Amino acid sequence: MKANHTIHQHCHHTVWNHAIEPVLSVAPGESVSFEVMDASGGQFTRKSTSADVPGIDFAQVNPVTGPVYVEGAEPGDTLEVLIEEFGTLSWGWTAIIPGFGLLADEFKDPYLKIWDLDNQKTAEFLPGIELPVKPFPGTIGVALPEPGDHGIVPPRKNGGNMDIRHLTKGAKLYLPVWVTGALFSVGDTHAAQGDGEVCGTAIEAPMHIKLSFKLHKGKMIQEPRFETPGPLTTGLDEKGYYVTTGHASDLMDASKNAVRYMIEHLEKEHGISRQEAYALSSVAVDLKISEIVDVPNYLISAYLPKRIFT
Amino acid sequence: MKANHTIHQHCHHTVWNHAIEPVLSVAPGESVSFEVMDASGGQFTRKSTSADVPGIDFAQVNPVTGPVYVEGAEPGDTLEVLIEEFGTLSWGWTAIIPGFGLLADEFKDPYLKIWDLDNQKTAEFLPGIELPVKPFPGTIGVALPEPGDHGIVPPRKNGGNMDIRHLTKGAKLYLPVWVTGALFSVGDTHAAQGDGEVCGTAIEAPMHIKLSFKLHKGKMIQEPRFETPGPLTTGLDEKGYYVTTGHASDLMDASKNAVRYMIEHLEKEHGISRQEAYALSSVAVDLKISEIVDVPNYLISAYLPKRIFT
Repeated sequence: MKANHTIHQHCHHTVWNHAIEPVLSVAPGESVSFEVMDASGGQFTRKSTSADVPGIDFAQVNPVTGPVYVEGAEPGDTLEVLIEEFGTLSWGWTAIIPGFGLLADEFKDPYLKIWDLDNQKTAEFLPGIELPVKPFPGTIGVALPEPGDHGIVPPRKNGGNMDIRHLTKGAKLYLPVWVTGALFSVGDTHAAQGDGEVCGTAIEAPMHIKLSFKLHKGKMIQEPRFETPGPLTTGLDEKGYYVTTGHASDLMDASKNAVRYMIEHLEKEHGISRQEAYALSSVAVDLKISEIVDVPNYLISAYLPKRIFT
Repeated sequence: MKANHTIHQHCHHTVWNHAIEPVLSVAPGESVSFEVMDASGGQFTRKSTSADVPGIDFAQVNPVTGPVYVEGAEPGDTLEVLIEEFGTLSWGWTAIIPGFGLLADEFKDPYLKIWDLDNQKTAEFLPGIELPVKPFPGTIGVALPEPGDHGIVPPRKNGGNMDIRHLTKGAKLYLPVWVTGALFSVGDTHAAQGDGEVCGTAIEAPMHIKLSFKLHKGKMIQEPRFETPGPLTTGLDEKGYYVTTGHASDLMDASKNAVRYMIEHLEKEHGISRQEAYALSSVAVDLKISEIVDVPNYLISAYLPKRIFT
């Protein structure tokens, strides 16, 4: 991967704090190859099992590589980040971590799936269930203006752990600049994920990611925006979808119900376990807001691409 | 449109009530052509203007054609409804109705757009902005087991006003049967809509819709499900998307912010009015749940297909 600069994975941080010293300064137009650790920060390996899940140290999770000082960036500007390229994949993991995830109250036991990504194009979940690989960075953002440490898990006005699965190759992300130099970092690379990431993890996979930067001086946005160069679901949507719906007066409750029905469907119709169904929903099922105005009830739909069943 | 039966639009109702007498009895396997009124129940015409919006009678809105008694259907069964065909389109409307819609507090003035759908394939919003037509029924469902009148606006466990824009030709909808004969009705046909229907209305268009029925005896589901035969956004996604995001600890607040930013973008970059931007978001912009687990913040994205700009 040819880039103007490379940042290695030891240059990482696990909180947002604008006092963290930049590890590189780049001019707009330059590209950087970031070496990104998996979201466990190296605590899981290809040989890990479910038994290793409860022991992970949360202080080490979701490391982001950086920060990068972008020359000329000032508060009130917009930083454009072009997702140029992803490096070679090797392996990944998906976990159900007790206490975390949309249905945390119902899934109290740890689960870990190790994925072989050596063929670069597909990821086998179980025999007969295969996902196309579409890498993207789960966490991508800039420093916050407020001083001190800010946890890395929630997304904020600086971007961060947004888990937007459509930030794939060719996408342009627009981030508001909150501090001089922007102080950009990226991490939490995913090989695939459904919209929502319902069990709390995607196909978490270490990889290199090449990005380039552009500045829009004096153009202010309040939260991140992005553009995609083309269709979002090519390679996934060709056989259509099986969809469950949930209605409720609260979007969160409606989402939980839609996902519960999807898990029930996967167990019953595809003969996989309840934990597998939850994890598969996280990496392959898209949550859409079908209806958000027909008070007092709203409707969430969970879309399972039929193509993953080979 | 050739079908085993036709139900005309005067056979309609504006509440769900299992005491409403069926207008037709069909055997599984038969098809029915439903003549569906527009969601105003005929109160708007091609000549209506914004001035007509405040005067509409809500007791007449969202009429559904039916009900149809499906022979052999009993509580605990699933009714499969195949969306076979849509009839000729002629016109449609999109309104901002004071007091209704995702941003009702910010859009207090009435607005009405009348669409010419005579070419059957595209709908011009303004010169240079054109939507592909993809008809679907906004309201589709069966009677509820609970006695009495149930308002037609909110979706419930009987389906109803789900506004699922992907129930287009070829989709199969699965509805739980709650009463003997199911008592199926359909209405609120839309020529196009974005996921969410944010201003509260789609391209509301009267049309015929042909459906056929199948019974799954003893197969019980708790809420509607469906299958689509292929990709969801063909004809819309080829040029990619411009996307705004909103994060919040509440999915509703996040959604509102994402839509506010989209309106701001449409006003600024495409030179349309604020009301037009809100209405265009309702008919063309898709709300996705990007991330629903990174507590305490969640992320909603609003996807604008660039292809609508000609």
